[in-house]
Amino acid sequence: MSSYYEKHVFFCCNEREPGDRPCCARRGAQEMRDYAKKRVKERGLAGPGKVRINQAGCLDRCEEGPCVVVYPDAVWYTYVDRADIDEIIEEHLVHGRVVERLRM
Amino acid sequence: MSSYYEKHVFFCCNEREPGDRPCCARRGAQEMRDYAKKRVKERGLAGPGKVRINQAGCLDRCEEGPCVVVYPDAVWYTYVDRADIDEIIEEHLVHGRVVERLRM
Repeated sequence: MSSYYEKHVFFCCNEREPGDRPCCARRGAQEMRDYAKKRVKERGLAGPGKVRINQAGCLDRCEEGPCVVVYPDAVWYTYVDRADIDEIIEEHLVHGRVVERLRM
Repeated sequence: MSSYYEKHVFFCCNEREPGDRPCCARRGAQEMRDYAKKRVKERGLAGPGKVRINQAGCLDRCEEGPCVVVYPDAVWYTYVDRADIDEIIEEHLVHGRVVERLRM
């Protein structure tokens, strides 16, 4: 059976207290999630049968973050900046090609 | 390749303003997500290679909600109470059997 969203992307946006484990929120997660959502919409990729960008609570890979997971493929990425997000969108979400250099 | 979490479960916990579209938050989503997280932990199911329960932003199936999605299976459920959550945990998360009566 096909997936309601062909690519369902979850950005960990969890924020921890200073002194706790590292967290994605302090590594730009919310900004990058917002950017991804905007880009996907601009590219006409958003919607059922296509792509959905979501924020999520702690995905519990804090030390390796910031992290994002693409389902149903179950491919995990880390990222630094907008160029990384653009590459994930163009390569993985549009063309279905895993971006090995960003893979966790 | 295997999934980092064998079953990764996302509860929509989005809250909308009164008068807007319906939202999962006003149908008990947060309480049910907390309950699921507790039960999965108690059953020894939580962790890498096993189960992860997460909250998520709006999954955009508001009119059909409250909703939850199990990845990488891409199976969507709605639920009413703890008995429904228990059934999803025991049937789907433990035994890999889709709970047809709760399927969206």
